[in-house]
Amino acid sequence: MENGASDNKDPSGFLSEIIGAPVTVKLNSSVVYKGLLASVDGYMNIALEKTEEYVDGELRRSYGDAFVRGNNVLYIAAD
Amino acid sequence: MENGASDNKDPSGFLSEIIGAPVTVKLNSSVVYKGLLASVDGYMNIALEKTEEYVDGELRRSYGDAFVRGNNVLYIAAD
Amino acid sequence: MENGASDNKDPSGFLSEIIGAPVTVKLNSSVVYKGLLASVDGYMNIALEKTEEYVDGELRRSYGDAFVRGNNVLYIAAD
Amino acid sequence: MENGASDNKDPSGFLSEIIGAPVTVKLNSSVVYKGLLASVDGYMNIALEKTEEYVDGELRRSYGDAFVRGNNVLYIAAD
Amino acid sequence: MENGASDNKDPSGFLSEIIGAPVTVKLNSSVVYKGLLASVDGYMNIALEKTEEYVDGELRRSYGDAFVRGNNVLYIAAD
Amino acid sequence: MENGASDNKDPSGFLSEIIGAPVTVKLNSSVVYKGLLASVDGYMNIALEKTEEYVDGELRRSYGDAFVRGNNVLYIAAD
Amino acid sequence: MENGASDNKDPSGFLSEIIGAPVTVKLNSSVVYKGLLASVDGYMNIALEKTEEYVDGELRRSYGDAFVRGNNVLYIAAD
Repeated sequence: MENGASDNKDPSGFLSEIIGAPVTVKLNSSVVYKGLLASVDGYMNIALEKTEEYVDGELRRSYGDAFVRGNNVLYIAAD
Repeated sequence: MENGASDNKDPSGFLSEIIGAPVTVKLNSSVVYKGLLASVDGYMNIALEKTEEYVDGELRRSYGDAFVRGNNVLYIAAD
Repeated sequence: MENGASDNKDPSGFLSEIIGAPVTVKLNSSVVYKGLLASVDGYMNIALEKTEEYVDGELRRSYGDAFVRGNNVLYIAAD
Repeated sequence: MENGASDNKDPSGFLSEIIGAPVTVKLNSSVVYKGLLASVDGYMNIALEKTEEYVDGELRRSYGDAFVRGNNVLYIAAD
Repeated sequence: MENGASDNKDPSGFLSEIIGAPVTVKLNSSVVYKGLLASVDGYMNIALEKTEEYVDGELRRSYGDAFVRGNNVLYIAAD
Repeated sequence: MENGASDNKDPSGFLSEIIGAPVTVKLNSSVVYKGLLASVDGYMNIALEKTEEYVDGELRRSYGDAFVRGNNVLYIAAD
Repeated sequence: MENGASDNKDPSGFLSEIIGAPVTVKLNSSVVYKGLLASVDGYMNIALEKTEEYVDGELRRSYGDAFVRGNNVLYIAAD
């Protein structure tokens, strides 16, 4: 992370640093979405662009824009 | 997305851009609804028009207007 | 919907348009309630009149007034 | 309901009309409680008097006063 | 209940009437706690004194003071 | 409890009386944590010191400080 | 903990003391994440750096930065 832990941002602050970047979003159900992080809010509701859906590592579907509801999100990792 | 990630809208802001557009709504239970996105709020409660219900890819039922409660929504994708 | 998607109501706004109308309410458990929509609030807590309970498509029980807690609601469809 | 759907009460408003009346409360677990509705709040937390607990239609237990937490409630029906 | 349903207390109000009294607390998991109701809040978080834990009707454990988190509570009944 | 039920503290008030004391924390998953209660908040988020993790009564792991999220907590009992 | 239980911080206060330190984060699903605690908020949403994902004790994956949603977190332990 740019400023690293020394900065006293909350997690949403760190997330805003990777807006526009490629991310991996894992859901509680283990389904994975990859895409460009267009936007995220305090509930980790996520707007992705160029979205791909992976199930057990296999590409299942591609979308343009997709909005994933935060309560289903396990983690968001910067690729 | 029109303005893309450079814009600092939150996800609801992006969602409002596709009001009136055809969308695919996937629920946590994997049931899929297709229809015109009439309205969405911060909880991702959704009002759809010309709604179709798909289970395992098969059309099960058609409604006029339907209101889907946000906590059941996994994602909303612009068709 | 009367004004259709062009209107910028949130879903509760749309729901208020069908107060008094016959509706189908599907729960997460797939149980279905049919009745007249007497009232609904922001949590999709619902007050129904002349309520019928259907399980697997079969009429199980009839009530006068019934109040269904919103968190159990999957969708509300205008009949 | 006394005023019927024409009234623009929210569901809690309708519930307050049946305070003191005999009700049936079904929980998500399908356990049913019958009793006099002493009080209910916005979360559908319920205070019942002369409470009876039914499991699979059989009377299991009787209590005087019982307080049922709203998140477990599926519906409340006026007997 | 002392004032009965005619009083327009919410359920927490009724609960406060039985502070200090012996109660039975049933959890969603069917585990039962018996003890003196020392305190309860709006979430039905509970402080019990002389607490006993029953599983399938059998006494499993005794505690002095115990604090039970409200979201696990199914009901509280005055013994 | 020091002042007992006559005091009108809410459960958090009672919990603050046992700060620094040895406690047993049982989770919804039946995993048990024992340690010194360093801190607790209104959600029953807990900070423990000298923490031990027990599964089915067997010591599995020891930590220094551990922070347990409140929604997983079933109860906290003063040892 | 530096000041120990005598301090009347809430758990988030204690967590802020270990910002930058190596931690172990266990999820409800028993998946474990190890990394440097970059940031944490009141919901226990967590930003980690140099993140490693362990399943059944085995290293599965390494990330740079990862953001774990609080509702999935069972505990955070300072290594």
